[in-house]
Amino acid sequence: MDFDYSPRQREWMARLGAFMDVHVYPAEALYAEQLDAMAANGLPWKAIPVMEELKTKAKAAGLWNLFLNDSPHGAGLTNLEYSPLAEMMGRVIWSPEVFNCTAPDTGNMEILERYGTEEQQDRWLKPLLAGEIRSGFGMTEPGVASSDATNIRTTIVRDGDDYVINGRKWWTSGSLHPHCRLLIIMGVTNPDGERHRRQSQILVPIDTPGVTIVRPLSSFGFGEVPFGHSEILLDNVRVPATNMLLGENRGFEIAQGRLGPGRIHHCMRSIGAAERALELMCRRLTSRRAFGKSLHEHSVWEQRIADARINIDMCRLLTLNAADKMDKLGNKLARTEIGEIKVAAPRMALKVIDDAIQAFGAAGVGPDTLLPKMFVMQRELRIGDGPDEVHCRSLARAELAKYLAAEVA
Amino acid sequence: MDFDYSPRQREWMARLGAFMDVHVYPAEALYAEQLDAMAANGLPWKAIPVMEELKTKAKAAGLWNLFLNDSPHGAGLTNLEYSPLAEMMGRVIWSPEVFNCTAPDTGNMEILERYGTEEQQDRWLKPLLAGEIRSGFGMTEPGVASSDATNIRTTIVRDGDDYVINGRKWWTSGSLHPHCRLLIIMGVTNPDGERHRRQSQILVPIDTPGVTIVRPLSSFGFGEVPFGHSEILLDNVRVPATNMLLGENRGFEIAQGRLGPGRIHHCMRSIGAAERALELMCRRLTSRRAFGKSLHEHSVWEQRIADARINIDMCRLLTLNAADKMDKLGNKLARTEIGEIKVAAPRMALKVIDDAIQAFGAAGVGPDTLLPKMFVMQRELRIGDGPDEVHCRSLARAELAKYLAAEVA
Amino acid sequence: MDFDYSPRQREWMARLGAFMDVHVYPAEALYAEQLDAMAANGLPWKAIPVMEELKTKAKAAGLWNLFLNDSPHGAGLTNLEYSPLAEMMGRVIWSPEVFNCTAPDTGNMEILERYGTEEQQDRWLKPLLAGEIRSGFGMTEPGVASSDATNIRTTIVRDGDDYVINGRKWWTSGSLHPHCRLLIIMGVTNPDGERHRRQSQILVPIDTPGVTIVRPLSSFGFGEVPFGHSEILLDNVRVPATNMLLGENRGFEIAQGRLGPGRIHHCMRSIGAAERALELMCRRLTSRRAFGKSLHEHSVWEQRIADARINIDMCRLLTLNAADKMDKLGNKLARTEIGEIKVAAPRMALKVIDDAIQAFGAAGVGPDTLLPKMFVMQRELRIGDGPDEVHCRSLARAELAKYLAAEVA
Amino acid sequence: MDFDYSPRQREWMARLGAFMDVHVYPAEALYAEQLDAMAANGLPWKAIPVMEELKTKAKAAGLWNLFLNDSPHGAGLTNLEYSPLAEMMGRVIWSPEVFNCTAPDTGNMEILERYGTEEQQDRWLKPLLAGEIRSGFGMTEPGVASSDATNIRTTIVRDGDDYVINGRKWWTSGSLHPHCRLLIIMGVTNPDGERHRRQSQILVPIDTPGVTIVRPLSSFGFGEVPFGHSEILLDNVRVPATNMLLGENRGFEIAQGRLGPGRIHHCMRSIGAAERALELMCRRLTSRRAFGKSLHEHSVWEQRIADARINIDMCRLLTLNAADKMDKLGNKLARTEIGEIKVAAPRMALKVIDDAIQAFGAAGVGPDTLLPKMFVMQRELRIGDGPDEVHCRSLARAELAKYLAAEVA
Repeated sequence: MDFDYSPRQREWMARLGAFMDVHVYPAEALYAEQLDAMAANGLPWKAIPVMEELKTKAKAAGLWNLFLNDSPHGAGLTNLEYSPLAEMMGRVIWSPEVFNCTAPDTGNMEILERYGTEEQQDRWLKPLLAGEIRSGFGMTEPGVASSDATNIRTTIVRDGDDYVINGRKWWTSGSLHPHCRLLIIMGVTNPDGERHRRQSQILVPIDTPGVTIVRPLSSFGFGEVPFGHSEILLDNVRVPATNMLLGENRGFEIAQGRLGPGRIHHCMRSIGAAERALELMCRRLTSRRAFGKSLHEHSVWEQRIADARINIDMCRLLTLNAADKMDKLGNKLARTEIGEIKVAAPRMALKVIDDAIQAFGAAGVGPDTLLPKMFVMQRELRIGDGPDEVHCRSLARAELAKYLAAEVA
Repeated sequence: MDFDYSPRQREWMARLGAFMDVHVYPAEALYAEQLDAMAANGLPWKAIPVMEELKTKAKAAGLWNLFLNDSPHGAGLTNLEYSPLAEMMGRVIWSPEVFNCTAPDTGNMEILERYGTEEQQDRWLKPLLAGEIRSGFGMTEPGVASSDATNIRTTIVRDGDDYVINGRKWWTSGSLHPHCRLLIIMGVTNPDGERHRRQSQILVPIDTPGVTIVRPLSSFGFGEVPFGHSEILLDNVRVPATNMLLGENRGFEIAQGRLGPGRIHHCMRSIGAAERALELMCRRLTSRRAFGKSLHEHSVWEQRIADARINIDMCRLLTLNAADKMDKLGNKLARTEIGEIKVAAPRMALKVIDDAIQAFGAAGVGPDTLLPKMFVMQRELRIGDGPDEVHCRSLARAELAKYLAAEVA
Repeated sequence: MDFDYSPRQREWMARLGAFMDVHVYPAEALYAEQLDAMAANGLPWKAIPVMEELKTKAKAAGLWNLFLNDSPHGAGLTNLEYSPLAEMMGRVIWSPEVFNCTAPDTGNMEILERYGTEEQQDRWLKPLLAGEIRSGFGMTEPGVASSDATNIRTTIVRDGDDYVINGRKWWTSGSLHPHCRLLIIMGVTNPDGERHRRQSQILVPIDTPGVTIVRPLSSFGFGEVPFGHSEILLDNVRVPATNMLLGENRGFEIAQGRLGPGRIHHCMRSIGAAERALELMCRRLTSRRAFGKSLHEHSVWEQRIADARINIDMCRLLTLNAADKMDKLGNKLARTEIGEIKVAAPRMALKVIDDAIQAFGAAGVGPDTLLPKMFVMQRELRIGDGPDEVHCRSLARAELAKYLAAEVA
Repeated sequence: MDFDYSPRQREWMARLGAFMDVHVYPAEALYAEQLDAMAANGLPWKAIPVMEELKTKAKAAGLWNLFLNDSPHGAGLTNLEYSPLAEMMGRVIWSPEVFNCTAPDTGNMEILERYGTEEQQDRWLKPLLAGEIRSGFGMTEPGVASSDATNIRTTIVRDGDDYVINGRKWWTSGSLHPHCRLLIIMGVTNPDGERHRRQSQILVPIDTPGVTIVRPLSSFGFGEVPFGHSEILLDNVRVPATNMLLGENRGFEIAQGRLGPGRIHHCMRSIGAAERALELMCRRLTSRRAFGKSLHEHSVWEQRIADARINIDMCRLLTLNAADKMDKLGNKLARTEIGEIKVAAPRMALKVIDDAIQAFGAAGVGPDTLLPKMFVMQRELRIGDGPDEVHCRSLARAELAKYLAAEVA
């Protein structure tokens, strides 16, 4: 048991930190400017020039695919080693893409790496790993409570050498990015099968006939440019049977494997977002005065800052602990630890960001700080990859099982 | 002491309720559509057709200027009588304008009614009361903590028969509306005066040379079309001395009088927003299933719904109580009651709306429900018209004064 | 609608307030001393001399049985009129007994007044109204979740002209008071009946053979002298059939009628307890210094005091509103309002008292302030007369019913 | 970085766990019985027989003085290694004494070990290490806000070869234990010195003339038998000059060194208390039914259990992290980490215990579960060793210092 970062972690943190300092933070204003300009032009969105330049630099610096563990294609980092790096990226909302570490590509690359055939990997994994294309992931549906995966209604039906897909997805992350070429779609192949053996995941090139992007979806008024959640209609979409992932009816199994790392990556970044918000809050409070003293001397802020520091540090430890368990036990056995941080991290980050907004007054809700977008992103996280209530339900059932078993025994 | 609505309140509630049912709720979809279309066209914004039609109908129905009490120009309602009507309007964010009851016009009309000269009233109050023009209010400034009004830096300097105004305002509410013709600006006329005798308020026609609308301000990604907060540059803006309101150095006095009703109107509407959110939440929970039962049967929702009902009802009573005190004691003596509800109502509404968002899952953060915009509006309220911390400070000082006086005595 | 106390309320508040100032507050130290002395002597407890003196004075002053509305035996006050008086009493934990307004006697007197036969009233109601005897109420049982009344296991079986009672009760309030002569016991008479027609309530003189007080129950270490909750064994307790209240199988009906006023009386007193705690907190904060300034100048206290003021005022209004609805609609139709305040008031009071404890530091948990006992009493209230969860369940079901009915229709 | 317990930790956990299972848990009922009997006899308290027997067994098993790190007198455990052991002890409130690991002896032994002269160690440290005597620590005073140590008023004045001590202390922990022989008293030796060089700590045999135990102090109604906080009058208490610890005016320095481990020991035990409460809650919820289902199926409990699991795990990690920092950096440099957990752990434990109380209903506040005493002990911790507000103040100042320095630079 050792709570210090290892020399290897420190070395990577120093490398990434230097890159952030030299290249990313100085580009924040320019990125915002180019993003606004691009958003003003409406759909279809274009790639943001400064992002493409930064990606080239990051790749050259060897800061690339850091997230992908247990794989010759990644940087050779464990989840625990990646964790403080993801936290650093979390300080700048858009920076994970710089390092090819952004959702949903990360999860999709993992799927292809773990479960893809050689052909599937050649066609899709390679360009994704190279950052040449991007991808989308379609699970959630507008008509049902998708947090219970058995509710999903999109159908994937075998027809000769093809599968035919029909359904409607939304919050299909990644789908509006100009480089998006591939969708991974979850749907029903075996409606009468055992609860967790009904669904499959299949590869759908985004330009397949029958795939219609109905509309982009805003979130709290943010267009989410260029993260690009959309609503997608799948109308008799026909793909070759070789596009099936892993095998029919194994979609739930893939989803379970996929969601673990995805969830914890988000949480690692939540820590970084909260640290950034705390920094912004402290800087603001020490630079303004009201009622005869500096804002930070109104001691309600003492309590809020102390709570922020305590809660950030607790959540960081909980995240690192989950990453360590994933490395040692695998994603499945670490599901309690993953569930814990999935609930705890966004809740914590939302509180810190909300306090920071309050410290900024009117500026806090407006367009001049990072805070509103950070808030919205964390708010989505309380729902995305499973709402809090579902994770809490699982956590409670695991806890109660210790005693219910005892009752029976 | 009587907690039932009076016959007169009930009669007005029935009248307004019928109008809402027949005209407003059925227009919600159309309004959203026209708003989106208008927003897509960018600045300058145009009036929204369905709003103009509804205003005509409301005026014809005698549902007009309901907010203005103690005045022959209003509908003859007290604050207490107006309160449940404002709650009703709060259920549909944009509906107060239908009844010429929307900020900042309401506050501006009150100022002109209470403190305006006959000439000022003829030129500005009459068309405002008629709903022919709209107006803006400029107090907050980007460079300072404006919640402490003594920080305000905009200058208003006498020069012969004119005043010359220099400064920068933001979150100038109402200023981007296509009908906006008038700004009321607060600035310093007597920098060395007693703390509360340094400022003045002055009328500035929006087309006066030197008034530049620098940019619209978004809030959490929402463009706030057509509520229209903007940043405004005032560069040697020259207006006749007769545009001064009430008299030099009486700006703080006006602000105090103005803010009381404005604050409570917002709070009344917060109650309505929370009721709407609770209704949406209940409807959603009873229409979706997960894990083998209806969402509402997962009893965590029992606790949340119960808390919502309790907290809404408490805040409604606190609002009505404040309105009653304003009617009986005047805005100044009711300042504790006003401060209480200013803190309590948005906090309560935010919690209810946030829970409702969670009930909706992904749909809750997206563009298809009223919830994100309602959330943002309530979040702004924790800052607008004085941040929570400032109100809490005043409330605490009033409470402590009871005992500090005793210590001294 | 009118939020001011009526002249009649003000008159009674002045009368009671004067009595509190002249007789009760000055007796607090002596009461504590006599209570400690009595507790040190152990069981059986004796009446506390200063209490008996104060009762005589209160009776003489006409401040007697104030709680009992709609009855020639009470003071002629409505629930709404009684409410601010109960709040006053709540400031001194033991003072309700001074005015013969203390649980469980109040509820028991109501039962006897509403449902008692002439004979029952002569024997028990008269001396209770006169304050000559006290009484206990036995509903909760140690072996089951008694908040679901259908779980109750004590049996009441007809045997000739008698009923024979067997079972075990605990938290039988009032039973250890030296003047206690009567228990009202709830038990099963018709185990196979309709859910709410299984139980009866019956009068049991405490000296009936078979009634054994097993032990007194402490609460958070407080012996609850002389409130006197105990565990009671009922072993073949035989009472005449005429001791049955209202009729066999009507116990649930009685309980519902009984609990409404009892619940709200507690809540009224919770407001007073919170006000007292806030006063103690403010006095402490203004009389001590740390780190170079008075404690109250550490502004975290500003937020806590402001929250206390807001939340007390909201809960008071919610309580008064419930009382008003009880007066106008009856206890049954006011059950939502009663449920709301039952949840809200103790929760609020606990927070205020807890903050006050923190303001006092080590003294706050010790024996020298009223705060620990106030805290414990409010903590019990979150469980007594139905735990929060059960009330929240009812509130939520009432809310959801609006929409579930609509779904069906 | 490694989040798994080390083999050495696991080995000690197994040893202590076995002892708890075989000797401590089975003795809980007997201990409670003997404690009640002893408490009923009043002062002076006697040693509890079963405790003395358990101490003998623990000593024989080598489970003794586990807390004392960096010392030949301890068991050779680091803070990090001791941490999970202290958690285990925290599950049974009184069990730390079994292993000679209970406050205030632990802190007092540390002081004597670090700062004591050979003579002082011979006379006092040896019997304390052997568990033959116990000791008290007197810092807090009734008349001032002692959390600001500069407020302390007790005087220690040199007089020839003696010091003469005058003052009044309370919450002098350990002082009522029948084996208590020694007090360590903090007082002013240099009132005009620099803020942190005014105080000294001195050894005072409890039987020194002038030492009067004024009264035992109850906490929320619990007599705290045999933990024994008391109020103590020091009236011209004369001790030899050789009783001074470390040197005149170094009391604050000693206190700083002493409080670090003491604080974290408490927090380690808070984790254990919370785990025990969670276990009790789960067992209760799975063994009772209401409204047609098991209590645990009312899903509000899912949320509470999940929150408990998350918050316990976060606090455990924060505690272990602080212990690790203390081992690596020393108590002084680890003060931020210590401050964090000092605030976080009792707050967390209080919430879990409070929920558990609610799960138990009336039984939860009564004498039959461990919960009320656990609650009170954790509530004291929010005040003892520095109230939350003081720790939050320090944490905030450390955080703000990062940016305030930057402002100045």
